[in-house]
Amino acid sequence: MKEKIISELKGRGIALDKISEIVFTLQTPYFPYLTMEDCHEAIGAVLKKREVQHAILTGLALDVLAEKDMLPEPLLSIIKNDESLYGIDEILALAITNVYGSIGLTSFGYLDKTKMGIIGELNNVKHRQVNTFTDDLVAAIAAAASARIAHSARGDIAASED
Amino acid sequence: MKEKIISELKGRGIALDKISEIVFTLQTPYFPYLTMEDCHEAIGAVLKKREVQHAILTGLALDVLAEKDMLPEPLLSIIKNDESLYGIDEILALAITNVYGSIGLTSFGYLDKTKMGIIGELNNVKHRQVNTFTDDLVAAIAAAASARIAHSARGDIAASED
Amino acid sequence: MKEKIISELKGRGIALDKISEIVFTLQTPYFPYLTMEDCHEAIGAVLKKREVQHAILTGLALDVLAEKDMLPEPLLSIIKNDESLYGIDEILALAITNVYGSIGLTSFGYLDKTKMGIIGELNNVKHRQVNTFTDDLVAAIAAAASARIAHSARGDIAASED
Amino acid sequence: MKEKIISELKGRGIALDKISEIVFTLQTPYFPYLTMEDCHEAIGAVLKKREVQHAILTGLALDVLAEKDMLPEPLLSIIKNDESLYGIDEILALAITNVYGSIGLTSFGYLDKTKMGIIGELNNVKHRQVNTFTDDLVAAIAAAASARIAHSARGDIAASED
Repeated sequence: MKEKIISELKGRGIALDKISEIVFTLQTPYFPYLTMEDCHEAIGAVLKKREVQHAILTGLALDVLAEKDMLPEPLLSIIKNDESLYGIDEILALAITNVYGSIGLTSFGYLDKTKMGIIGELNNVKHRQVNTFTDDLVAAIAAAASARIAHSARGDIAASED
Repeated sequence: MKEKIISELKGRGIALDKISEIVFTLQTPYFPYLTMEDCHEAIGAVLKKREVQHAILTGLALDVLAEKDMLPEPLLSIIKNDESLYGIDEILALAITNVYGSIGLTSFGYLDKTKMGIIGELNNVKHRQVNTFTDDLVAAIAAAASARIAHSARGDIAASED
Repeated sequence: MKEKIISELKGRGIALDKISEIVFTLQTPYFPYLTMEDCHEAIGAVLKKREVQHAILTGLALDVLAEKDMLPEPLLSIIKNDESLYGIDEILALAITNVYGSIGLTSFGYLDKTKMGIIGELNNVKHRQVNTFTDDLVAAIAAAASARIAHSARGDIAASED
Repeated sequence: MKEKIISELKGRGIALDKISEIVFTLQTPYFPYLTMEDCHEAIGAVLKKREVQHAILTGLALDVLAEKDMLPEPLLSIIKNDESLYGIDEILALAITNVYGSIGLTSFGYLDKTKMGIIGELNNVKHRQVNTFTDDLVAAIAAAASARIAHSARGDIAASED
C-alpha cells in the first residue's frame, strides 16, 4: 500500500525528495546531525501508517475528481476554487499529524501558511491542477515526519512507536 | 445552502424528523421539558454552520461516487465495504461535532456504536446504498444538536452562539 | 515513565486488569480468539506512548489538585462538580485515542456514556474522589487499546506501529 | 465569566490590545478595511465561548501552579521547562480554534512557530513566569478571532454563529 501511495503522489507531481527537503529545512536548526537519509526514513515510516494512507487516498481522489469535473455542485466549485473557508482539507491533514501526537500541529500550520518548497509549487500550478487537498496533505506528511524525528531523537519510546 | 443540504440528505433517505427523534431520545432524560420542536430547531441551527455543511457535502459526495463506482481503487473498495479500519468518515463527523465543543463527542461515539434509529436503518440498506460516510454524518448532526441543546439550556452563552 | 503512570493509576484505584476487562468485553465479539493477555499487552503498548503519558499525568494532576482544593475558582468548582458542559477532560481523552487513529473515537464515546466496568465505579465514588478527568482517561486507554487490537489483527502495518 | 477571563489574562501580562494587534497583522492583507475595533470585537466574541473559557481557565491554572511548584513530578518539570515534546498545551489551544472550524488551525500553527507580538514576549520572560500553556492559548485566541473575521466577512452564516 505504501508503494501505491508513493506512486499516487508522484502522479500528482510530488517526489518524496521534495518532502524530505522540507523536513530537513524544518528540523536542521534543532538537530544539527540530521541527514536527508533520516528525513527519507521518517517520511517512509509516516507513509506506512494506515490512517495516513487513508487520508492521502481520500484527499487525492477528491482533487483528481474535481479536476475531471466529476464532483457534484456546489462541492465541485468549492474545491476547484480552493475556497479559503473550506476546511475539510485541513481536517484530513490533521488526521495525518495526529498520528504522531500534537507537536506536529505547529509545523503543519506554519508550512501551510508559508507554502515552503513543493507546497508552494503545488499552489502555483493551480490553473493546471486542483491541489486543494494535495498541498495540505504534503504539509501534513512533512509535519508528521518532523514530529517523528523529534520524538525519536529523545531516545525514549516515541509517541508513535510500539 | 442549508436547503441544499436538507435536500441532499433527503435524497439519501434521511428525513430531518428521523434525526430529531434521535436527539429527543438522547436528551429527554436530562431535559424533561424538551419538545420535538426544540430538536428540529437545534438541528436547523447545526445545518446552518459552514463547517457542518462542508463536511456533509464532502461525505455524501464520497458515498454517492462510491455507489457509482467512480472512485479510484483501492479507495473504492475500502468505502464500498465500509471497512472498519477506515476512519476518515469519523474524521468528517468530528468536524461537525467540534463546532459545538467537545461534549458532543461522547454522544457521537455512543450513537455510532449503538446505531440508534435512522443510523441503524442506514446501516441495514448497505446492499443497496453506500452509507459509509452518511451514517457517521447523521450521528454527528444528532450529537451536535444534542450538544447545542445542552449548552443553550444552561442560560449562559452557549459555546456555539456569538 | 510507564511504571510511574501505572503506579499513579493504581493510586487512584485503577488496576490495569480492570481496564483489560473492558477491552476484552469490547473486542471479544469481533475477535473470538482474543485473550486477556492480548488486552494487557495492548494496554501496555498504549501506556508507552509519550502523548498518552502526558495526557494521563496532566488529567490525574488536575483531579488530585481539585480534591485538595488547590485549584483557583471558578475552575475548582467546575472540576469538583464534574460539570457536564466542561469538555476539557474529553479533550485530553481525545489526545489519547488519536494516537491510534480515529477508530477509537466511537469506542471512547460509547464507554464514556455507558460507564462500563471500572469507569462506572469511578463515577460512583464521586463523593470521595474527584474523577472528572480520571474516568475519561480510563475510557480513552481502553478505547485506544481496542483500536490497537483492531489494527494489529489486520496483519497490515497498524496505524500505530513503525 | 468573560470578564473573569480577561482579568486572568491581564494578571499574566496579557492585554487584549496585544492580541488585537496580532489579529490585525494577520488579517489586514486579506481584509483591507479591517479595523482594530473589528479585531477587539472578534476577540470579545471568542472569549464568550464556553469551551474557550474552559480551555483558558485550565491552561492558565496549570501555568500558575507550575510557577508555584504545586504540581507533582514529573509533570512539574515538564511544564516548567516547556518541553517541546509535551503537546497538551497545543491540545488545549486546538479546543479553542476548533470552535470556529478548522481554518484557524493554520493561523495557530503559524503564530505558535513565529512567536509574533505578545506571544514572543511571553516566550522571552520564561525565567520569571511559566508560560507553557499561556503562549499557546494566546495564539489560539488570535487564530480563532482571525477565523471569525474570515467567516463573517463572507456574509453567509459564519460557522460559529447561530
